[in-house]
Amino acid sequence: MRAQDLIRKKRDELELSADEIREFIAGVTDDSIPKYQTAALLMAVYFRGLSDDELSVWTDAMIHSGIVVDLSSIAGRKVDKHSTGGVGDKVSICLAPLVAACGVPVPMISGRGLGHTGGTLDKLEAIPGFSTNIAVPRFIEMVDKIGISLIGQTSDLAPADRTLYALRDVTSTVESIPLISSSIMSKKLAEGIDGLVLDVKVGSGAFMKDLDRARELAQTLCGIGRRAGKEVTAFLTDMNQPLGREVGNAIETREAIDVLRGEGPDDLVELTMALGAEMLIIGGVAEDEASARAQLQKVRGDGSALEKFARCVELQGGDPKAVEDTSLLPRATKTTVIAAEREATLQSINAEQIGVAAMILGAGREKVDDTIDPGVGLTMQIRLGDRVAAGAPLATLHHNDDARAARSEQRFRAALTFGDGERKAPPLIYEVLRK
Amino acid sequence: MRAQDLIRKKRDELELSADEIREFIAGVTDDSIPKYQTAALLMAVYFRGLSDDELSVWTDAMIHSGIVVDLSSIAGRKVDKHSTGGVGDKVSICLAPLVAACGVPVPMISGRGLGHTGGTLDKLEAIPGFSTNIAVPRFIEMVDKIGISLIGQTSDLAPADRTLYALRDVTSTVESIPLISSSIMSKKLAEGIDGLVLDVKVGSGAFMKDLDRARELAQTLCGIGRRAGKEVTAFLTDMNQPLGREVGNAIETREAIDVLRGEGPDDLVELTMALGAEMLIIGGVAEDEASARAQLQKVRGDGSALEKFARCVELQGGDPKAVEDTSLLPRATKTTVIAAEREATLQSINAEQIGVAAMILGAGREKVDDTIDPGVGLTMQIRLGDRVAAGAPLATLHHNDDARAARSEQRFRAALTFGDGERKAPPLIYEVLRK
Repeated sequence: MRAQDLIRKKRDELELSADEIREFIAGVTDDSIPKYQTAALLMAVYFRGLSDDELSVWTDAMIHSGIVVDLSSIAGRKVDKHSTGGVGDKVSICLAPLVAACGVPVPMISGRGLGHTGGTLDKLEAIPGFSTNIAVPRFIEMVDKIGISLIGQTSDLAPADRTLYALRDVTSTVESIPLISSSIMSKKLAEGIDGLVLDVKVGSGAFMKDLDRARELAQTLCGIGRRAGKEVTAFLTDMNQPLGREVGNAIETREAIDVLRGEGPDDLVELTMALGAEMLIIGGVAEDEASARAQLQKVRGDGSALEKFARCVELQGGDPKAVEDTSLLPRATKTTVIAAEREATLQSINAEQIGVAAMILGAGREKVDDTIDPGVGLTMQIRLGDRVAAGAPLATLHHNDDARAARSEQRFRAALTFGDGERKAPPLIYEVLRK
Repeated sequence: MRAQDLIRKKRDELELSADEIREFIAGVTDDSIPKYQTAALLMAVYFRGLSDDELSVWTDAMIHSGIVVDLSSIAGRKVDKHSTGGVGDKVSICLAPLVAACGVPVPMISGRGLGHTGGTLDKLEAIPGFSTNIAVPRFIEMVDKIGISLIGQTSDLAPADRTLYALRDVTSTVESIPLISSSIMSKKLAEGIDGLVLDVKVGSGAFMKDLDRARELAQTLCGIGRRAGKEVTAFLTDMNQPLGREVGNAIETREAIDVLRGEGPDDLVELTMALGAEMLIIGGVAEDEASARAQLQKVRGDGSALEKFARCVELQGGDPKAVEDTSLLPRATKTTVIAAEREATLQSINAEQIGVAAMILGAGREKVDDTIDPGVGLTMQIRLGDRVAAGAPLATLHHNDDARAARSEQRFRAALTFGDGERKAPPLIYEVLRK
């Protein structure tokens, strides 16, 4: 096969054979296919898509471009969760220990933040000493021993994805549902899981701005996973405002720890419970949602979820005392309260711009190699539909730099739209896609 | 501008600005834009096309990626002809001297053959000593002095086209009408011409197999030229069988010389006269087609067209005696006659495969760096609709190698379809697109 013939077939909407796809992904992995041919094929896929069969082979070839974690020696059904990314989404940090504390092993490999979205790894690394750079054998050992490990993508898992992702970024071929789906699922399926719960975000702070596109992505992700023999459920959830109140790193970790101890804001708690219940059912330790929720409530109440997280932190080099006493987490030196200019009702939030406002403070990265300030961020004090009085606090900025705070405040204010009409709060969960 | 933003705009069907296009073509020319971004943009253009405005700027930027020949000091309207390529198309070789002999300067820059299509340069170089590798100042001097020069593409004319063409070839983005059109017109408009006659071939031996696509290409080419202030006419002509009888190099040059001396096969003569008449009208030396044809007939009859060609050959280092006495042109050592197996009527010809049959003998190139055997080729002895008796000659192969001849004969026979029904000959000229 010549790469140009493969490109031509996809361009002309012909089905690629399994051998052709495997040869292509192998060529991407060992760099034997020039990047300009890969770029042309990615753009052809952007326009023509991939059939279910093509997509399954494509994803499988990406999985097998590297090692596949073998967790088969560990008892129980291993279940992970993946979110497509939003603002204030710290669910992984409370969800994984809760589910693990209920007896379902959670082998979780997460990513870093870029642009307006934060990353679980950055939030976890706000814990003093915590390392997410854990090799696969140690990861397997932890999942076996304590039922949880929270690590970063290693270079030997789905290496084809890194090459393809870097190229998609500079050739404007990111926004393709088959390419997004194969990227996500290749990394997740390489983890050695039996089941997966997907949280596909929809709204102004999400990659997918409308429900139809989000549903299409969710269905595509589920299809890949199910054809690979995994049990997969997808939730379509709201991202028209930050999840919870905190947007940053240490402050988000603190909020997630609140959930582990039975506290935390309603939306974050409810989404964690809903996703967690699904993971317990898929993991085979609960018959139905009611019993799953009861188990989760129990481990939230009796301290065992918190203890599970502290144990994970300790085994990954972090200070478990910071889990007990979150005042040990990094803090910004200054706070600035942003106050309402007049009495009004919050009509809409450009949640993406809230993420950018936190990034400006130093909580996120504009470019991949930017460094993060773990202590900074913002605390939302208002939600969609709230009526505020003039002078009431909208948010508090936690920062180390007045000039950044001023720019961040400007960005924050521009992200909110006030009016006098009523505004019903959006639902937290739009749809659940089960098999 | 970041290249990925330009790619995204085109991908999303937004209009590129003139500055964006010029910056892109400049980046292609100086290699500052990575080839993978160029490849992605080419594929996006394949799917989204280019608007008239985009296409004009794109072509103009390609023209100005190199030098533009300045023929303004030469009196008269300079007119060239371009053919999109076919089998047996030796029109340039007889057309240019005929038109020049009538007083219209013809600055002609031609290409080489690749695959099933021959190239004017290869045919001309069959003349002993003839060089097509002439620098631009000498080219201008010849056009000034004798009204004709027949040269090859030089590296300083539209260099962006070479980069883009090489990349299109390996990324399956060749078959895009705006990309084909900008490639052709950038080279032609860099010649410094005032007018252009296009011969867009349609049929089994042409790049465009159907009339609608060929018309679309012709209209696009005309549009670019006219918006650039040139007078352009396009002919849509038949390529369902070789043009004339000869397919090769020296034998095609010989046939073209026949036309210059008032002989030659009907179809070749008629197409040459039609294109030539248009060039005389655009060149401003004839009022209408009848008077143009009369002028062309005159220079065919009085030896002045032949003399013009001999002078051109001489000034380009070739032996002018070979023009007078074509037995001095290279000849193959052997001939093989291909005979009809039964009495039948010729229903269809896969003209592309006739080109391949000649290529197998050594008349063409499979790869860019293959060498050509100037003496070999084939002489067609049958045309569409002809009724042949069993044993009647279909073609004569001129070759230097029996094994190649055997493979060529096989290819030749497979290219012909015989039947017993009547078959009307196709028209030579389908349409003429004038302003």
